[in-house]
Amino acid sequence: MAIDKAGHRAGILLAIAAVLATTVGSRSEAYDGLVEKKVFSMPAYSTVGGETIKNVQIGWESYGQLNEAKDNAILITHFFSGTSHAAGRYRADDARPGYWDAIIGADKPIDTDRFFVLSSDTLVNLNVHAPMVTTTGPASIDPTTGEPYGLDFPIVGIRDFVNVQKALLESLGIDRLHAVVGASMGALQAIEWGAGYPDMVDRVVAVIGGAEADAFLIGWLNLWAAPIRLDPNWNGGDYYDGPAPTAGLTEALKLVTLQARAWPWAVDTFGRTWAVEDRNPAASFDNYYEVEAWLTAAASARAAVSDANHFLYLVKANQTFIANGGPTLADGLRGMTMPVLLLPAVGDLIFFPELATAPMAEMLEAQGTAVTVADVDGPLGHLNGIAFTGAHGDLIRRFLTE
Amino acid sequence: MAIDKAGHRAGILLAIAAVLATTVGSRSEAYDGLVEKKVFSMPAYSTVGGETIKNVQIGWESYGQLNEAKDNAILITHFFSGTSHAAGRYRADDARPGYWDAIIGADKPIDTDRFFVLSSDTLVNLNVHAPMVTTTGPASIDPTTGEPYGLDFPIVGIRDFVNVQKALLESLGIDRLHAVVGASMGALQAIEWGAGYPDMVDRVVAVIGGAEADAFLIGWLNLWAAPIRLDPNWNGGDYYDGPAPTAGLTEALKLVTLQARAWPWAVDTFGRTWAVEDRNPAASFDNYYEVEAWLTAAASARAAVSDANHFLYLVKANQTFIANGGPTLADGLRGMTMPVLLLPAVGDLIFFPELATAPMAEMLEAQGTAVTVADVDGPLGHLNGIAFTGAHGDLIRRFLTE
Repeated sequence: MAIDKAGHRAGILLAIAAVLATTVGSRSEAYDGLVEKKVFSMPAYSTVGGETIKNVQIGWESYGQLNEAKDNAILITHFFSGTSHAAGRYRADDARPGYWDAIIGADKPIDTDRFFVLSSDTLVNLNVHAPMVTTTGPASIDPTTGEPYGLDFPIVGIRDFVNVQKALLESLGIDRLHAVVGASMGALQAIEWGAGYPDMVDRVVAVIGGAEADAFLIGWLNLWAAPIRLDPNWNGGDYYDGPAPTAGLTEALKLVTLQARAWPWAVDTFGRTWAVEDRNPAASFDNYYEVEAWLTAAASARAAVSDANHFLYLVKANQTFIANGGPTLADGLRGMTMPVLLLPAVGDLIFFPELATAPMAEMLEAQGTAVTVADVDGPLGHLNGIAFTGAHGDLIRRFLTE
Repeated sequence: MAIDKAGHRAGILLAIAAVLATTVGSRSEAYDGLVEKKVFSMPAYSTVGGETIKNVQIGWESYGQLNEAKDNAILITHFFSGTSHAAGRYRADDARPGYWDAIIGADKPIDTDRFFVLSSDTLVNLNVHAPMVTTTGPASIDPTTGEPYGLDFPIVGIRDFVNVQKALLESLGIDRLHAVVGASMGALQAIEWGAGYPDMVDRVVAVIGGAEADAFLIGWLNLWAAPIRLDPNWNGGDYYDGPAPTAGLTEALKLVTLQARAWPWAVDTFGRTWAVEDRNPAASFDNYYEVEAWLTAAASARAAVSDANHFLYLVKANQTFIANGGPTLADGLRGMTMPVLLLPAVGDLIFFPELATAPMAEMLEAQGTAVTVADVDGPLGHLNGIAFTGAHGDLIRRFLTE
């Protein structure tokens, strides 16, 4: 075992080095110009559930140029804790580019010399307090009352996210997408685009996602939300004039953070190291292992720019998802006739490939849809689909240009 | 996929039927007589951490007869949320027998016609308020103050659980175990017995466990504990004269309950069914899916007999575990020279077989220890190791009698 283990560790260290290269990047990266954040406004949006939201605003950004025919647009849809910042930098000295900078840019697999790539913040985006994010959700001011909505904000779903994106595209004169590409909750949106608006979508790339929330995921999402409701500061969602439920939100984000990763990452990054050298975790409840301290620090940083109610609305949007409203998965996928590229991740504990990818691929094939499936490998589980998608860069490039 | 899926579903339904048969049992089961709960007392116990606990009491039970040579004893060690009730019934009309009744009893794989099988409640057992459980932990009265210990109770580890079991065995005149057999946290105890007291243990059967808490598990255990600390009733562990932190404990138990299972169970048991027929989860935050309602009901029932501080002490005991204190796994396992049977579970999300079983097996083999490994299959993930161990009944029988 010692030798195999060493080989395994070496492989993982290489993989982690690749993650760092992806997320930290180099100065010769991606989109050549600086990225400008824009805001799209709708005076009113009618939800699938029949409610009206006034004054909807969402942030968006783009890389590359829309051609005269307006037929070279690729929409990037973001994950649960993500934003529209998929590529490039806002300022030359930004520490990091957007999350998929490895695959979006000049001469990259999603080639901005050829395509007009755009990405928007969803409704109820988690990162309400992040400076470059614009979203509309329970933390927004209800124009009717002048107060934040809280839980009076209408429940929205993945289709609502898509419908607002559709309105954004229409405002730009785009009535057809060369492709929709998204990871995790972004894959749900990409699938919903293909299944719900097949006449507008030429290709779908769904990374680490699925065509429905299965029962196991519905259960996990319930558990992700639970710490927020336990925090007394949450106060039934009415906390905007008092202290925020930061402790609960932090624990919720710890759950997301850990479940989106996998044991090879944890074992090789932390082992059983103590958080503080002379503070043995066996000696006190105030002493922690390094992995615990890292989780708390990572989640605290995310909580500082996030909103707890938005988290609950995102949980609901994901739980209620089934492609095109179902009622069965086969029904929901029927409209999805354009070519589909599915990129599940090895070791994914959120969208298990055998459950979320294989049955969908077989259903699509059975109805004559062209499906390509490739696994994204790495030590990160679910997040392999963000960090290591570049390993399938050639496949993505071919899929988008064939 | 439709056909494969149907076949898969049929397999799962058969497997679930087998679980029901195992856990509900028939009247012709197991141990022939009724089981008597007994209590073992120690005036004082000194922990590995150097603290003294006065008046330690733990419950225990046994099946079969101790022979004159006192060399036919098999110790069963229980899992995180378990008790000493491994087999048989306390009363003829008990709804269920002990959890491993399928493999412990007259002419069963752990044959009570041949072996004296005994099992004890651990220190800090979770089920403080269950009528047949006796344990000593933070909910116990500190003889020095006359009040419950709360967080003043000393931190204990798996080795402390083992040491109290050792004192129980010595009180019975048993100085050698034919085998130690345990699942999950029970496997940790079985491994600790073999690694720590090799001269007393002839065989180890470790089901769905590992020889250390790895970094990923340490992180998950931190998350399991978090809801309790968020519940304002927890009050730093000082709640015994007020309302208990039941909401937090329930959420903690929901996490344990779901992570100990797996997607095939969830998908085939619940699908996307709503908890209440006319209450669409997309319409309200008060409407749930059936899997959510089931999790809440199951965890609430467990919370009613459990104690939140005991949960936190169990989390700590599991996080700090490495066989025989390590410091490395190879060091810790060095004493483990008796034959070892390892039964990991397919789809286990707590002790991943590739991490928890394969490296341990290779380390043991490398030092000349006889190791047998067999996978426990089923739709339940981790809990396959409780529900479906009987599928390896012949293997267990042979291992115990060769």
